[in-house]
Amino acid sequence: MECDPIGTVYTPHETTSEAPRQGFHGDADGVVDLHPDYREGLSGFDGDRVVVVWWADRADRSVLTLDRDPGRGVFTSRSPARPNPVCITECRVLAVDREAGRLRVAGVDMADGSPVIDLKVPVDVQCWDST
Amino acid sequence: MECDPIGTVYTPHETTSEAPRQGFHGDADGVVDLHPDYREGLSGFDGDRVVVVWWADRADRSVLTLDRDPGRGVFTSRSPARPNPVCITECRVLAVDREAGRLRVAGVDMADGSPVIDLKVPVDVQCWDST
Repeated sequence: MECDPIGTVYTPHETTSEAPRQGFHGDADGVVDLHPDYREGLSGFDGDRVVVVWWADRADRSVLTLDRDPGRGVFTSRSPARPNPVCITECRVLAVDREAGRLRVAGVDMADGSPVIDLKVPVDVQCWDST
Repeated sequence: MECDPIGTVYTPHETTSEAPRQGFHGDADGVVDLHPDYREGLSGFDGDRVVVVWWADRADRSVLTLDRDPGRGVFTSRSPARPNPVCITECRVLAVDREAGRLRVAGVDMADGSPVIDLKVPVDVQCWDST
């Protein structure tokens, strides 16, 4: 199953180990920049939160247990190191430029330059009428 | 970026259009069955909720706007139809068989037989010490 990057996320974190751990976010700002082919997917976007689905392209995909606790499997964590390094970060939206396909967001925990594979509204946002 | 299925989810929903929409879950039960190669990733799993990341393999990947509202892009929704049909469902865990790599879960909205690409703990679960 092939994932195509829809864009890139720019953050102040050079590596995932420098980034805050998921669930313990700092409030660093970042920018999600969509490739031109996917900008139309942002039409009508007006939410104040967004779920950024990103690919931890520098993560170790070979591990099944946690380095710090080999008795625990990777599926008991949110560590980026896992067979499919698909990571999920809910961010606050600071600004949207729909035409440019650009979102400025707060609460980023991605390594700078990570590929973005999807954007969604949070599950608690009422979207019954718009899906 | 290639995703390898780590397992399969079995649900009562034949298609995604029969499934409840995300955020408006029914309480249908399903089973996540991990491939033997990935069972070790479930070691020590003892949570009562799990985030199932699955691939909507029957979704239309060519759409960028919503069928019902072409003024809105797919990134303003949680519809499975999107360029990378990576879907995220938080389920309640009813039973775990770690050795068999099998989870019985409630709150499924996947089409039956969908590939699973990841399992995570919910972001609000304290996992500081175990990642």
